Amino acid sequence: MTAAVTREDVVAAARRISGRVLRTPVLEISPGLYLKLELLQHSGSFKVRGAFNRVLSAGPLPDSGVIAASGGNHGLAVAYVARALGVRAEIFVPEVTSPVKVAGLAALGAHITQTGAVYAEAAEAAAKRAAETGALPVHAYDQPEVIAGQGTTGLEIMEQTGGVDTVLVAVGGGGLAAGVTLGTSAPDGGGPRVVAVEPELIPTLHAALRAGGPVPVEVSGVGADALGASRLGGLAYDLLSGPRVRSVLVPDEAIVAARRALWERHRLVAEHAGAAAYAALLAGAYEREEGERVAVVVCGSNTDPATL
Amino acid sequence: MTAAVTREDVVAAARRISGRVLRTPVLEISPGLYLKLELLQHSGSFKVRGAFNRVLSAGPLPDSGVIAASGGNHGLAVAYVARALGVRAEIFVPEVTSPVKVAGLAALGAHITQTGAVYAEAAEAAAKRAAETGALPVHAYDQPEVIAGQGTTGLEIMEQTGGVDTVLVAVGGGGLAAGVTLGTSAPDGGGPRVVAVEPELIPTLHAALRAGGPVPVEVSGVGADALGASRLGGLAYDLLSGPRVRSVLVPDEAIVAARRALWERHRLVAEHAGAAAYAALLAGAYEREEGERVAVVVCGSNTDPATL
Ligand SMILES: Cc1ncc(COP(=O)(O)O)c(C=O)c1O
Ligand SMILES: Cc1ncc(COP(=O)(O)O)c(C=O)c1O
Repeated sequence: MTAAVTREDVVAAARRISGRVLRTPVLEISPGLYLKLELLQHSGSFKVRGAFNRVLSAGPLPDSGVIAASGGNHGLAVAYVARALGVRAEIFVPEVTSPVKVAGLAALGAHITQTGAVYAEAAEAAAKRAAETGALPVHAYDQPEVIAGQGTTGLEIMEQTGGVDTVLVAVGGGGLAAGVTLGTSAPDGGGPRVVAVEPELIPTLHAALRAGGPVPVEVSGVGADALGASRLGGLAYDLLSGPRVRSVLVPDEAIVAARRALWERHRLVAEHAGAAAYAALLAGAYEREEGERVAVVVCGSNTDPATL
Repeated sequence: MTAAVTREDVVAAARRISGRVLRTPVLEISPGLYLKLELLQHSGSFKVRGAFNRVLSAGPLPDSGVIAASGGNHGLAVAYVARALGVRAEIFVPEVTSPVKVAGLAALGAHITQTGAVYAEAAEAAAKRAAETGALPVHAYDQPEVIAGQGTTGLEIMEQTGGVDTVLVAVGGGGLAAGVTLGTSAPDGGGPRVVAVEPELIPTLHAALRAGGPVPVEVSGVGADALGASRLGGLAYDLLSGPRVRSVLVPDEAIVAARRALWERHRLVAEHAGAAAYAALLAGAYEREEGERVAVVVCGSNTDPATL
């Protein structure tokens, strides 16, 4: 079997999206402990990496442009990418989406359709519309180009730190963690341990590893607006079920405390999903050893700073 | 005449404070335009650099520890440094200081004396007390070790960017800008242009350059809590009156807009003083040329994010 996404795809993605996304810095907060400041990325999350790679890989785009379903960071990222490339973006969001998020999408010039009670219904409507118009669908996590794009975060971590033993990264649908697993891998296939962190209330990877494949999970808690995929992506499962990956869960209280600590100690404004990986370290869900070189991906900042 | 502070002092300071302060990252927000993220520094501003260098240069400390006058970032920095080194800190603050700031100092374990209607009176009381107890005074800007410490920010900018043509930096008493002028200088004495940015409402450097030396100025506006020195330091004057330095003023509205843009575009929470240098660029008080490599020091984050 040939892997559906490879390290070479991540290297190619890095070249393709270079100059379009920020090379976000790493901050060494104590010796050997690095925060990858991906929350400073354009549109407020890593999601533009995957979206740019998907769109720039597609060749000439139809007049109908690109299309996505998301009331959250993926939608913002696709709208940002479309504006940057001068193409049309149509974003389908469920009716529950907050007016603030709809306004954010509108400010980026996206055409918004609010439909369906839940995300799955909006996604279905988007798929139907894409079939009608020929617009390029950009999936939130389960597409090879999206995973390769997110993986450039991992490549940069290895370059910027000179290499680490362990990377902590949050999991929703699994695109980021899968990409980072590839992007941090050595050309020979080895690489640092990947600690894949999920809220206890949204255990998509945890449940998939137990069941031997992606299964639906209940979704709730503080991370739900960004980590709320109801099942792991199939491509992510293939990449995250290997021996380098360790799945850990963190309670919502730990995520809330980590988000507050990121502000109080480090002056970083992260959203809950963006603080989940750091929470695993602070709460001891992952215990760092003496001298272990660790990178934590702080991956999103689409939040109201007044809520800190 | 031998210079009171030299580039070599900055290099020595960098060695002395290494591991005590963060090597804050730079973020390249567009090709050749760098933000030095000194707002992520311990205690929320660059002030710990100077304070560590002053205290670590002093040799064995008396039991009375260190003493400073400041209701702002300098006080927080001295309290942070004292706690890190396990020595006593006494901080004199004027009676107008907000309870939030006093609480912040107290949380760092500092002994606080609230006295005097304005800063100058608190400073006088602190000087008197230092003479009595033998505690080491740490000045907010007008001491060679303090200037050398702040200058390590400039050294790092040159290393992290590979060199720039211009650095924009905010001026209060002038310690940061003076240090950065030294820290960015080439061993042969040249170096990038230093654009020294002040609010129109607190023109300490601007007035000093006109008068041929430091003179008292009126202090008001949004930057007053951090840039509110009422005259430029004498050491800073010597370093900032040379040909590499250009003095520019920005209106308060530009500072407010720059602070908002730092959050909305770059997800950085800066205080007004921390946004002043960026304001000069955004508002056109300094016009960047095509291809010019520019670093902007974003130097403080001691602010309530709810006010963004
Ligand atoms: C801030 C943030 N972190 C993490 C994730 C999870 O990413 P993935 O779905 O690729 O696992 C998301 C997804 O939207 C996100 O917005
Ligand atoms: C955030 C911030 N920026 C700039 C300054 C000005 O520094 P200096 O007094 O060394 O000019 C200060 C001084 O407190 C500050 O706190």
